[in-house]
Amino acid sequence: MAEEYVQSLARGLAVIRAFDAATPELTLSDVARKTELTRAAARRFLLTLVDLGYVRTDGRLFSLSPRVLELGYAYLSSLSLPEVALPHLERLVAEVHESASVSVLDDADVVYVARVPTTRIMRVTIAIGTRFPAHCTSMGRVLLAGLPPDELDAFLEGHPLERLTPRTVTSPVALRGELDRVRAQGWAMVDQELEEGLRSIAAPIRNRAGRAVAAVNLSSHASRTTLESARRDLLPPLLATAARIEADLHATSSREAMP
Amino acid sequence: MAEEYVQSLARGLAVIRAFDAATPELTLSDVARKTELTRAAARRFLLTLVDLGYVRTDGRLFSLSPRVLELGYAYLSSLSLPEVALPHLERLVAEVHESASVSVLDDADVVYVARVPTTRIMRVTIAIGTRFPAHCTSMGRVLLAGLPPDELDAFLEGHPLERLTPRTVTSPVALRGELDRVRAQGWAMVDQELEEGLRSIAAPIRNRAGRAVAAVNLSSHASRTTLESARRDLLPPLLATAARIEADLHATSSREAMP
Repeated sequence: MAEEYVQSLARGLAVIRAFDAATPELTLSDVARKTELTRAAARRFLLTLVDLGYVRTDGRLFSLSPRVLELGYAYLSSLSLPEVALPHLERLVAEVHESASVSVLDDADVVYVARVPTTRIMRVTIAIGTRFPAHCTSMGRVLLAGLPPDELDAFLEGHPLERLTPRTVTSPVALRGELDRVRAQGWAMVDQELEEGLRSIAAPIRNRAGRAVAAVNLSSHASRTTLESARRDLLPPLLATAARIEADLHATSSREAMP
Repeated sequence: MAEEYVQSLARGLAVIRAFDAATPELTLSDVARKTELTRAAARRFLLTLVDLGYVRTDGRLFSLSPRVLELGYAYLSSLSLPEVALPHLERLVAEVHESASVSVLDDADVVYVARVPTTRIMRVTIAIGTRFPAHCTSMGRVLLAGLPPDELDAFLEGHPLERLTPRTVTSPVALRGELDRVRAQGWAMVDQELEEGLRSIAAPIRNRAGRAVAAVNLSSHASRTTLESARRDLLPPLLATAARIEADLHATSSREAMP
């Protein structure tokens, strides 16, 4: 397949990704450095992106234009899941006063596709598309627990389990045991394995064939919620929300319900 | 610049855009037809995108993967505007019970970067990135009215004014007169020029240099809101909201406040 690979496309997409919240405006030299391209190559890609309307420039500084939204939103608008889930997330957040999210599995990460925050700290526009490692997040645990055995084996063999806090489970054997428990009980709780002070609880959203295609969670600060109170106060409304989202998804066509 | 143009990048981005809400899953033949590429070329681009993680396939059907969100969100996360505007839009919608949006100008279109709907019909995740022609929308009118004279001339000379309803202003002379009025009064009202039954009213959001960098609007159905009631009931809270967003934007760094 090596001869099939279109390197120019890979490099051009890397140029788009060179822009981020911390550095929304870049010079030609910045882009060359961040993408490890020569200045001449970076210049060709930038001018092509300017020509296509994806990048703007004043001659010296380059920045992304609103047209790049076409690319990410082609995916989002093809998903019925965020649209189906959002009203249910809003109801859940109004009930329990904790932030709720829906994510899907992509390689070794969960990717947020819908989020309703309680606070103004992280807005929905920023949160969507955010990725976290699946092995140490509650949504990742329910999605990994729902994988067919051969896909779970491939995940555990192919991805080192990074330690993000002192509590992160990094042993494949221990993680497999935890996933067995999650699969049996139908939900996952993760206590400060992704970030100190962050507890979250998640439930799977299954398609009509019974496969976990997405997960919904509630996240809270450890100072506010004990493991016991999360289980007592957050789990029942979370499971009810997952059931409502599933029912609505199954009412749409099965093709649409697939993320 | 012809020799500088990276055609493979342009074609690869066209392959991403071939997927949309109506056709989230495509065969190789579908992609070739939609992008006017040969099957061999379409296959090379698709396999490259699969390799990069932007496209998934079961061998026959192709679909976008959540990773494409990285591309659009690089732009959104670089904007402080949606984050600054959303709490103010929510307050406005709670007050007047009509949907509110913020958009920026991109070529001849307005592009939504934030939206708070009153109903469930169009959710924020779907709405963001939506484009409408600037000449027949209230947000477009305030943004066009805020252009420097040479840029407005270039717009009027470069873009035919498409008729979308019987009421759409399609004469450049008439539009220029309307833009003069909008500039003088500091807001725009558009009555069913984009779509029958849709009325909207918009105000500019100016940067510290006084240039209109974005617009905020309220849209309503003609059956619910007369031109008189829009002016009496919607305009004052809209102008107050625009002022609050401007104040917050100016409080952030001037670089960040630029969309």
